[in-house]
Amino acid sequence: MLFAASESDVVDALGLAREHGFPVVPFAAGSSLEGQVVPVAGGLSLDVTGLNRVLEVHPGGFQATVQPGVTYPELNRQVRSQGLFFPVDPGAEATLGGMASTNASGTAAVKYGTMRDNVLEMRVALMDGRVIRVGSKARKSSAGYDLRHLFIGAEGTLGIITELTVKLHPLPAHLVVLRCNFGRIEDAAACAVGIMGAALQPERLELIDEHEIHAVNVHKGASYPEAPTLWIELASPSEVALAEALELCAELCRDAGGRGLATARSAAERAEIWEARHHSYYAMCALYPDHARLSTDLCVPLHRLPEIIAFTRAEADAAGLHASILGHVGDGNFHVLFHAHPDDDATWASIRGVYDRMTTRTLELGGTCSGEHGVGLHKRAYVAQEHAGALGLMRDLKELLDPQGLLNPGKIL
Amino acid sequence: MLFAASESDVVDALGLAREHGFPVVPFAAGSSLEGQVVPVAGGLSLDVTGLNRVLEVHPGGFQATVQPGVTYPELNRQVRSQGLFFPVDPGAEATLGGMASTNASGTAAVKYGTMRDNVLEMRVALMDGRVIRVGSKARKSSAGYDLRHLFIGAEGTLGIITELTVKLHPLPAHLVVLRCNFGRIEDAAACAVGIMGAALQPERLELIDEHEIHAVNVHKGASYPEAPTLWIELASPSEVALAEALELCAELCRDAGGRGLATARSAAERAEIWEARHHSYYAMCALYPDHARLSTDLCVPLHRLPEIIAFTRAEADAAGLHASILGHVGDGNFHVLFHAHPDDDATWASIRGVYDRMTTRTLELGGTCSGEHGVGLHKRAYVAQEHAGALGLMRDLKELLDPQGLLNPGKIL
Repeated sequence: MLFAASESDVVDALGLAREHGFPVVPFAAGSSLEGQVVPVAGGLSLDVTGLNRVLEVHPGGFQATVQPGVTYPELNRQVRSQGLFFPVDPGAEATLGGMASTNASGTAAVKYGTMRDNVLEMRVALMDGRVIRVGSKARKSSAGYDLRHLFIGAEGTLGIITELTVKLHPLPAHLVVLRCNFGRIEDAAACAVGIMGAALQPERLELIDEHEIHAVNVHKGASYPEAPTLWIELASPSEVALAEALELCAELCRDAGGRGLATARSAAERAEIWEARHHSYYAMCALYPDHARLSTDLCVPLHRLPEIIAFTRAEADAAGLHASILGHVGDGNFHVLFHAHPDDDATWASIRGVYDRMTTRTLELGGTCSGEHGVGLHKRAYVAQEHAGALGLMRDLKELLDPQGLLNPGKIL
Repeated sequence: MLFAASESDVVDALGLAREHGFPVVPFAAGSSLEGQVVPVAGGLSLDVTGLNRVLEVHPGGFQATVQPGVTYPELNRQVRSQGLFFPVDPGAEATLGGMASTNASGTAAVKYGTMRDNVLEMRVALMDGRVIRVGSKARKSSAGYDLRHLFIGAEGTLGIITELTVKLHPLPAHLVVLRCNFGRIEDAAACAVGIMGAALQPERLELIDEHEIHAVNVHKGASYPEAPTLWIELASPSEVALAEALELCAELCRDAGGRGLATARSAAERAEIWEARHHSYYAMCALYPDHARLSTDLCVPLHRLPEIIAFTRAEADAAGLHASILGHVGDGNFHVLFHAHPDDDATWASIRGVYDRMTTRTLELGGTCSGEHGVGLHKRAYVAQEHAGALGLMRDLKELLDPQGLLNPGKIL
């Protein structure tokens, strides 16, 4: 483990690796979910949390330049007083370098996009000793090949990010969260599709099932109705417009079979809901402390969402599994959290079967095996299936940028 | 010239080129501005306008799959009845394949982004005979390297796009255009920055100077006040909210020294303004029919816009040039249209000097030499300057995908 304190420390570490032929695995918060930071081939774990300075903030340009070890909550603390925020919120205390490396997203991606949509420019240290600048601080550019997107989502396998310029957004003036319960989870999913179709452009549009709600209730001492639920955050610069949007949204929910509609208006009430959402994973862990877990993050074209959710629920129920579903459903992205005792081989085989069938079905529907968690160790076979035609070119790019295969080996490909 | 009618025609043409060693230059509308479609090394001009079918539209998924020869106005005609539209509007009857190849944008990019933000998935024919699928029909994906952005903006130098799945957006319910004139162009630019800072999130935010307004007045028989002008389009799902936004916007304009405020509300009035904007280039051509022209499309971080506009105006005026300025200023993107008699060598040398100084200044401010037109033949030296550190990697990628150098040679690099 080496603790880098500067870009030149990163360059030096890569130089030593090149010279001595050992792997380098970048590390920061360690909150990635697919084993991205596990040094499976040994070598150096390169900790960039010491690169933790916010270098520049330009409110009028809606942008900030940061080092890769800055966490997104820390950036938000620093820009909030200027009426701005950074919208990508994967949970945990994730760092912006790690978030760019997995193309993280979160609850606000439905409105503001993923890391891919929010990184303007980066500095990247390459294996050959160069540090290159990719992208531009301008909001748009058509000047040459866009190398930025090669490194976003590459999980440190092509280069190591040493600086990022990211977009900031104005804090919305007026906000409200609508809660609504449904009898069946696929009805909640269909309602989410209807809300997107009505152009309500929610800030957040989250689905959470009865199992997760139960875990949250136990963990937080809350009393949310234990049924498949949508949590919908709406925003507007105008209070009147917000009231109109809320009325339309409530009507859509009721028409889709929703009940128990309730609103959260104050900052404290809204924060409570989003904290419950962000802690739902930990809540489920706490409820089954002796279980091991497997989380998925499939994403389909929005019009296919009710179908894949219904398919997944039916498959998991038929197999008698602990499988809770939640998701950033405005994006067509949903998670299933499977859990079972680590020694229960029969159940794990069953989980693997459902996991495989839901992923295959997702790919058939034009979706992707990872909406936001990335590939890491665990989804390499599915990436090979999803991008069968392009896999050769991905391998060529890896070979071009890391001919010795030293950058985070064993990941993605 | 070969007229492709199918993807396999494109693959066959590339196969022949590979076998016989001749260049292939993709062609469609021919409306690109930097010489992208000029076959400078001879070879085959591969016309894909015959690939002109809209293959699928999924309103609930907000997406359409099209062949590369479909124009954006044609796509809009086909999806309008479903309450949807495709927002990228570079002008002319540009095709979606060409627009992806130059990462085109236009007036609505300030709200909806560029081609890069609106292409979900593509099929691309490679020089080695493969056809690969890049991206995903899901709204977001973290599954492997994102090869989509390698080909968007690559101007046909890395592969030829044979199919695209693009995002569609809901048509806004209520719209209004505010016109406002300013004494000095830099005041108009500063006002644009203020409007963005107030989070008004305009649909369009266009600057047009007195010279362009004059040309439009002559060409269209219009009577817009001949002064630096902002044309600001606002939208809302709520009439009340739109009125509030308009009031705030008008206040910001007046505070920034704006005058002659006027609104266009009906679809016909608004269309007249945006037609005037899209035809302004032709209007200037018509006014000086014996002049040659040079157009630029620099883009800077938004907070640097007033400074670079003032610098450019001062440089052009000091050199006594015909130089009209207009731009998609909400993005920090502006155009200068220089024109002079083709034989007037002294003036063209002077134009080249101003062009060079404004571009250098833009790069110093963190901007880009091309916000939307691309590189083509004319901006290769500036790309080399802007991306000095990354140019080697760009060359490596070109070599990897086109080792014989047959795909649109002489462009970008």
